[in-house]
Amino acid sequence: MGEPAGIGGEIALEAWRRRTSTSPRFVMIDDPERLERLAGRLGWAVPIREVGTPGEAVGVFESALPVLAQPLAVAVEPGRPDPANAPVVAGAIERAVRLAQQGAVAGLVTNPIHKAVMQQGGFAFPGHTEYLAALTGTPAGREVMLLACAELRVVPVTIHVALRDAIAGLTSAAIVTAGTVAADALRRDFGIAAPRLAVAGLNPHAGEDGAMGREDIEIVAPAVAALRARGIDAVGPLPSDTMFHAAARASYDLALCMYHDQALIPLKTLGFDRGVNVTLGLPVVRTSPDHGTAFALAGSGRADPGSLLAALDTAAAIAAARAAFDRTH
Amino acid sequence: MGEPAGIGGEIALEAWRRRTSTSPRFVMIDDPERLERLAGRLGWAVPIREVGTPGEAVGVFESALPVLAQPLAVAVEPGRPDPANAPVVAGAIERAVRLAQQGAVAGLVTNPIHKAVMQQGGFAFPGHTEYLAALTGTPAGREVMLLACAELRVVPVTIHVALRDAIAGLTSAAIVTAGTVAADALRRDFGIAAPRLAVAGLNPHAGEDGAMGREDIEIVAPAVAALRARGIDAVGPLPSDTMFHAAARASYDLALCMYHDQALIPLKTLGFDRGVNVTLGLPVVRTSPDHGTAFALAGSGRADPGSLLAALDTAAAIAAARAAFDRTH
Repeated sequence: MGEPAGIGGEIALEAWRRRTSTSPRFVMIDDPERLERLAGRLGWAVPIREVGTPGEAVGVFESALPVLAQPLAVAVEPGRPDPANAPVVAGAIERAVRLAQQGAVAGLVTNPIHKAVMQQGGFAFPGHTEYLAALTGTPAGREVMLLACAELRVVPVTIHVALRDAIAGLTSAAIVTAGTVAADALRRDFGIAAPRLAVAGLNPHAGEDGAMGREDIEIVAPAVAALRARGIDAVGPLPSDTMFHAAARASYDLALCMYHDQALIPLKTLGFDRGVNVTLGLPVVRTSPDHGTAFALAGSGRADPGSLLAALDTAAAIAAARAAFDRTH
Repeated sequence: MGEPAGIGGEIALEAWRRRTSTSPRFVMIDDPERLERLAGRLGWAVPIREVGTPGEAVGVFESALPVLAQPLAVAVEPGRPDPANAPVVAGAIERAVRLAQQGAVAGLVTNPIHKAVMQQGGFAFPGHTEYLAALTGTPAGREVMLLACAELRVVPVTIHVALRDAIAGLTSAAIVTAGTVAADALRRDFGIAAPRLAVAGLNPHAGEDGAMGREDIEIVAPAVAALRARGIDAVGPLPSDTMFHAAARASYDLALCMYHDQALIPLKTLGFDRGVNVTLGLPVVRTSPDHGTAFALAGSGRADPGSLLAALDTAAAIAAARAAFDRTH
């Protein structure tokens, strides 16, 4: 579902409209009435069909959008969220996790939520990722955000904190954990037998031997050594400005970055509108589109479903790779 | 000349070999004997012709590479620099500046120097830019580095310092100076009558209203307001991760960035091997290739001259735009 006043509903309707015979089939956990109203408002012919289980959805998907009913507490207009729906939105996430844990679905794709609205509604987590970790009993710090487009995969070691705090909080242990989780996921979820990690330096030119900051010598380099000691093919710290052109990208499978924009600038420069967010380190497969609720666009039908479509495809691909890996390991 | 043990000589020879009838004509300030030796070593047929003035070079350029003699203090092998040549290298830069000030050349293009080697040889400046500012009497802070490729122009407000120090040293005044110099240069040197500046936020999501750092509210936003008060079309602070995809780039002429990699990551992701460094705010036109001395490649003939060729073209284009602007203003 995601935030029901955001663009999640309409990009899901549009993803269903663009279905082909090879598209991953999905079932929504959402309010069927609000989806019908939304389709009507947009003038889109999307039959909504309530189902009782994901299994029922398989036969329905070709002719209608299957929905597991998750009724809203209060109806909302696009762009005008109501915190009273926060427990419903959180409940949809929990239901998706339980279905994935039972094996009733291959994975979950989460539409964007709005942090401030959720927290006003009593939601006690900073965002999706922390909630998913709690629901699945994943140890803190093992849930790792990977962002991917066709050209590039990145993992930022620090994420939604001030840049000053990202530097102050950067530790070798966090880099090693993120690198280890990422390498495991590349093997199990992305079918890469011997993953190659490129580790970005924190400072310009990776500090130029200490001339521009000591962190690359004291924090990043020891983490790279520790990853290598674990048998992971990691190189770095590398100057981050020369890591992301085509020839450089050909030398690694994933770039491990020290802060949000070091990872997100190249990703969105190369693959804007097609970026997918994947949470690594969870027992269930989880992806999401790499954008927010876009309240200003909500209800217009103009939101681009490209990132959601990529998130659906990526979830299906990960589920298939993981199943194949688990059969042989 | 640049560092004579680096790749400067061979990319210049190669730039001359790739000359066409529309290429900008250039004269080297270098040691003719070392260039002859280098061409011989590489097996490249590049006749070297010593000239007395840039004017003489014009007629020579078609059939030979014209050189104003700047003899080395000691001969060097590629990849093995000698600090004893530092005064000769610095002298070549000073001669180029004086020729440009006299109007004998339209501009100067500097090959890379190696900071540590120069400083061991008694050179008292951190790099080219500061030396050029001193030679031309440019007030401190008015010399501004712009990097450009076909897809993007960026100006980093802070440059070669640790990321931690870039944050600590960021001021509204520095942003306003860089933005003003950049807007003036876009008008006079790039022929853009009403330049549009996009100003990057420092923190992820430009701080998200203070949730991730106060600098965007307290430092960047007031600088954008001050630029607008000066009549400059500046917008920001913008989330830097969504500033550099094609649709976003179409909305501005230059991105003003807060730190080195925020500017250099998108530039080198989009335009690696074609980036040009332009020093704004000087009374003379100055460009350079956007790479270093590459000692490991020197003497192999494999260094890519693309960035030097782009630097030559850009210097010529700026000189022409500036002359046209000065005729009409």
